[in-house]
Amino acid sequence: AIDAMTTNHRIALIPGDGIGAEVLPPAQQVLDVLGCRHGFSLSYTSYDWGCERYLRQGAMMPADGIDRLREADAILLGAVGYPGVPDHVSLWGLLIPIRRSFRQYVNLRPIRVFEGIDSPVRGARPGEVDVVVVRENMEGEYSEVGGRLNSGFPDEIAVQEAVFTRAGVTRLLDYAFTLASRRGGRLTSATKSNGIIHTMPFWDQLVTERAASFPQVAWDQEHIDALAAKFVLEPARFDVVVASNLFGDILSDLAAAVAGSIGIAPAANLNPERDFPSMFEPVHGSAPDIAGKGIANPLGAIWSAAMMLDHLGHRAAARDITDAIAAVLAKTDVRTRDLGGCATTAEFTDKLIELL
Amino acid sequence: AIDAMTTNHRIALIPGDGIGAEVLPPAQQVLDVLGCRHGFSLSYTSYDWGCERYLRQGAMMPADGIDRLREADAILLGAVGYPGVPDHVSLWGLLIPIRRSFRQYVNLRPIRVFEGIDSPVRGARPGEVDVVVVRENMEGEYSEVGGRLNSGFPDEIAVQEAVFTRAGVTRLLDYAFTLASRRGGRLTSATKSNGIIHTMPFWDQLVTERAASFPQVAWDQEHIDALAAKFVLEPARFDVVVASNLFGDILSDLAAAVAGSIGIAPAANLNPERDFPSMFEPVHGSAPDIAGKGIANPLGAIWSAAMMLDHLGHRAAARDITDAIAAVLAKTDVRTRDLGGCATTAEFTDKLIELL
Ligand SMILES: CC(C)[C@H](C(=O)O)[C@@H](O)C(=O)O
Ligand SMILES: CC(C)[C@H](C(=O)O)[C@@H](O)C(=O)O
Repeated sequence: AIDAMTTNHRIALIPGDGIGAEVLPPAQQVLDVLGCRHGFSLSYTSYDWGCERYLRQGAMMPADGIDRLREADAILLGAVGYPGVPDHVSLWGLLIPIRRSFRQYVNLRPIRVFEGIDSPVRGARPGEVDVVVVRENMEGEYSEVGGRLNSGFPDEIAVQEAVFTRAGVTRLLDYAFTLASRRGGRLTSATKSNGIIHTMPFWDQLVTERAASFPQVAWDQEHIDALAAKFVLEPARFDVVVASNLFGDILSDLAAAVAGSIGIAPAANLNPERDFPSMFEPVHGSAPDIAGKGIANPLGAIWSAAMMLDHLGHRAAARDITDAIAAVLAKTDVRTRDLGGCATTAEFTDKLIELL
Repeated sequence: AIDAMTTNHRIALIPGDGIGAEVLPPAQQVLDVLGCRHGFSLSYTSYDWGCERYLRQGAMMPADGIDRLREADAILLGAVGYPGVPDHVSLWGLLIPIRRSFRQYVNLRPIRVFEGIDSPVRGARPGEVDVVVVRENMEGEYSEVGGRLNSGFPDEIAVQEAVFTRAGVTRLLDYAFTLASRRGGRLTSATKSNGIIHTMPFWDQLVTERAASFPQVAWDQEHIDALAAKFVLEPARFDVVVASNLFGDILSDLAAAVAGSIGIAPAANLNPERDFPSMFEPVHGSAPDIAGKGIANPLGAIWSAAMMLDHLGHRAAARDITDAIAAVLAKTDVRTRDLGGCATTAEFTDKLIELL
């Protein structure tokens, strides 16, 4: 099976911190096997950006970092975060500038309950939970607008402006409704228009407006508090869930936990217009507690690599990866520690490649 | 067992909408039994405020509503919300003005897994999960500050300012740390200082500052996305969780779902200084789908009434109620429909009073 598109892709690798450097090589191994089989090739440029660089040089990446990435066809990122470096420094010095400079306004997070994984939630049975969270990734609650007044005094205040634009929300909704119409035809919008009375009623209004163009999609909306509860009570009920930056962040981590698979969950930061490179990264963090031990679960990075192949036009190759992930979990008991086994990263990767 | 304080309390009852009117009478029945036993009495004034009033008269409550409530010692509220009335109208026309006018800055939400309740989460075993979410209730993400520009045009934007004050956060933290030192001595702060870079680092800083005054409390902090996941993965690990208005809203609903008990969960909106009446209300909503059928679960309202008694100084009476709730669930199979039974509200209430 050779894909229609046979070509060479330039991939920027940013291992980042902690286990980031341990999960990207397995992803590359898998990619190279598939490139050979499906007739494409990948060339890699690796960037040693992250918290160690910050501690040495005072910046997470060089001043021209974004420009260097610009020529890549896609970016594969490991993880960011390091004890002693405040999270808002590490994230706003690397991850978030990439998301924003390259206008990656869709953050796509698929969550599945695989056979062979014990979900902590009784109602999350393998095969029945297959959700995609479509998260807004450039505006909303994560905003640079805000600051403090009267620092250190009793009358100190901090303010933070959530900013929602019609254009920003609409393009996200169009992506989500289109995805829903290609999948199960159902969409749920996460809102909180009862408590957050300026931005969320606006969000609801735009959802209603866009829904009119997608009559084939059955949609509803839920307040984020009730929605979080329903992810636990009836996870199988959801298909595509569209959410703001913050709500999508919370829901996708929660859904991954419900699926028993934080170490497996991938994320794609997409610029759907392909004006700029998109970025692919596992949902898990840098896990300093297990870094350096060679026991990290590589599936989050490997599934992220599958999403990257899909974005680059290699659908069949991407499906090979997700099939192999399902197979290694359903048919073997090789597992990393986070999944209750005692395999190393390398052993787990080898087993997966065997099944590819 | 007669409580030290024997007195008469003036209670304002606001049944509100939907099942609100069905769950308050059971709570009153229970209160009256205990008043007799513990030597206090309650006199009630009932207010027919809510969405039906809004539809008839254009306002959820009269213009002098807040003033009328001012003389009460406590407020017991059923539920608010009605199909056809936008949630932000019903909530900001009644619930939220009460919370704010009476400076109820602590929203206290205990969550327990009772014996006899099937939790949807495997790790949530009876007796092991006993969490209190201490939610900020007057400022933060629920703010009147904000609005829209360019309505209806392509360049339309909506902004919403989250406002955190040193005074507002500090008084909440003092309440939460004090509670933690009276309970298990552990406190978790919900944050998102990696994504929300103005207000949440401020929140973290204030937590660190206040923690210094409570060396007997072991505390940590978790980003809201990871915390939501951990509520599912290891719910037994938490004791007191302190959170902003929005995060506390999400976490308390999620925790109630994890405990298998949204119909049971209570909330207290407290003005700890007692300058103004506090308000007690079940966490569940007005449930229009089952309203009028006499099958609503009254335990949320009854447990809220227990929190009210506790606040009014009747500790032993409050404990009688929570003991009876535990007993009716552990020792009988009388249950309302939401808990998998087929008892009516009245039958469930009678059984509970039998065990009181
Ligand atoms: C109805 C809504 C405004 C309210 C809130 O979010 O505060 C409710 O969810 C609650 O938790 O009391
Ligand atoms: C690290 C943090 C800023 C980030 C986010 O909230 O976006 C992370 O949680 C994620 O989901 O990618």
